[in-house]
Amino acid sequence: MAASLEDTGVTYGELADLEAEFEDVETEIIRKQFEMTKPLYEKRERLVSQIPNFWPLVLEQAPPDIDEWIQPTDSAVLLMSLTRLSVSHFEIENGGNGEPRSVSIRWEFNENDYFEDRVLEKKFWYRRSPEGYTALVSEPVEIRWKEGKDLTNGLLSLVKAVWDEEQQNGVTANKKEKKPLTAKQQALKAKIEEVGLGGQSFFCWFGYIGDRISAEESAAASAKEAENRARKRAGQPALPEAEEKEDEDDEDDDDDELEIFPAGEEVAIAISDDLWPGALKYFIHAQEDDEISDREFEEMMDQDSDEDDEMEE
Amino acid sequence: MAASLEDTGVTYGELADLEAEFEDVETEIIRKQFEMTKPLYEKRERLVSQIPNFWPLVLEQAPPDIDEWIQPTDSAVLLMSLTRLSVSHFEIENGGNGEPRSVSIRWEFNENDYFEDRVLEKKFWYRRSPEGYTALVSEPVEIRWKEGKDLTNGLLSLVKAVWDEEQQNGVTANKKEKKPLTAKQQALKAKIEEVGLGGQSFFCWFGYIGDRISAEESAAASAKEAENRARKRAGQPALPEAEEKEDEDDEDDDDDELEIFPAGEEVAIAISDDLWPGALKYFIHAQEDDEISDREFEEMMDQDSDEDDEMEE
Repeated sequence: MAASLEDTGVTYGELADLEAEFEDVETEIIRKQFEMTKPLYEKRERLVSQIPNFWPLVLEQAPPDIDEWIQPTDSAVLLMSLTRLSVSHFEIENGGNGEPRSVSIRWEFNENDYFEDRVLEKKFWYRRSPEGYTALVSEPVEIRWKEGKDLTNGLLSLVKAVWDEEQQNGVTANKKEKKPLTAKQQALKAKIEEVGLGGQSFFCWFGYIGDRISAEESAAASAKEAENRARKRAGQPALPEAEEKEDEDDEDDDDDELEIFPAGEEVAIAISDDLWPGALKYFIHAQEDDEISDREFEEMMDQDSDEDDEMEE
Repeated sequence: MAASLEDTGVTYGELADLEAEFEDVETEIIRKQFEMTKPLYEKRERLVSQIPNFWPLVLEQAPPDIDEWIQPTDSAVLLMSLTRLSVSHFEIENGGNGEPRSVSIRWEFNENDYFEDRVLEKKFWYRRSPEGYTALVSEPVEIRWKEGKDLTNGLLSLVKAVWDEEQQNGVTANKKEKKPLTAKQQALKAKIEEVGLGGQSFFCWFGYIGDRISAEESAAASAKEAENRARKRAGQPALPEAEEKEDEDDEDDDDDELEIFPAGEEVAIAISDDLWPGALKYFIHAQEDDEISDREFEEMMDQDSDEDDEMEE
């Protein structure tokens, strides 16, 4: 079915402007939410830090968006060694005036049989591309696996090597010229094809990169958008469109085919927007599943005989 | 894995209280969001009312949570005749001080071959059960199908008949006494078993009921919760727990087995929290898929030859 803005008094630009206004208000709401919930998160931290298995239990109750990626071995590692999970909106913390949608997800571990790290922290930057879309982008986080214990089958260290090489060569140049894959990239691609991504460890998530949008590109794109909206209001013509890269589609494909955890952004959002704010709820569910408070326990005892009777009916 | 609040200084009650505080702040945020976005929604309404196929195009781009329920015939009916969709937070509109999570979803139609109605409006009330959980509950909305055109195969009118009967007999009494199914309920159950619910029309969603929690029960449960939190703060003991209905589980099963659209609440939330606020974004996507603005069109024409060259490589 064809869209029909023709023959209406409405232009595409008007709709896009209004959509941008919605986005601005949404950003403002996220800021307010951050301020209003801050004391509650601090209180929660004080309480749950006294419960040794709080976060493993929350993860056990994680919604499907997250749970589907956690393999049995991952689950065992998390249950045995995860001591703390925390999400910070690092660009607006401590009075910062940055992007409220950027998040850092920090995992703290006890000593364990799988890796040396006691902290794994992965940052996601909310960025606007020169073409105008927004995305969470990240960088691979290395894990120092113990001998023979790499749950990612080498994928994570390969993706890190490819990333380091890309940083050294300069991302933009590399992308624009559409160079053939480097030896490291070829090795990563071959490894991905060899092991497949179905059923790979959740720890591959630490290797997610996403689109290559630098802080500078993002700032320029946002500034341009703001400028265009101001011009619109003043009845002036918009700035020229970003030069579309001719090989944009192919390029995205390249990035994607070297991505070891393509759903990295969705999982980050599920953690920061669902698991993190809902942690108490999930923990309480775990309590209700596994154990019960004393008062409830007594009540259940009173009813148990009735229920048994019913079941026997 | 057993939850372990024992041996910690933390009680179940402290966690539940904090969770309730989070909920209160969340309610406050939803109110603020409503106020802050109100002028934008009004502006949007003025713009999109000039675009005849706005809402059908938005629905074509609906996220999977909604799209998966729309069968090809539903889709054809919506495309041909849906003129307007709107979501209202009816308990806080016009200065109301009610529950901001209650929503009414209103569909407006042109004359069409399937039903007589020009407006179908379904309300969802956010209620707290005597046991303490919260849910969106609703009532079946009848559709006056034209001869031989009932897309729900009679399910919707059966569920309405059962509902009316339930209202007449008094819900609570019926539930508590765990009566056997009435003739109408048996007919509905048999019909559900006969046609199955897989692949049924989206219009069955209008028959969703959900848990039976009356406004009075909900108000009492909320008042009691607030009272308990005040007592807690004052160091007083909590009020006695709600009397658990012994047959609670069975009863829920009864309700569920007579539900013709069990995912009704999830779909309502997807519409009110995703499709409705994101309608411009979805429409813009549709535009980008199907058609393009003049400026973009010109630019694409400039690039087309290059792209063709590339594809031929």
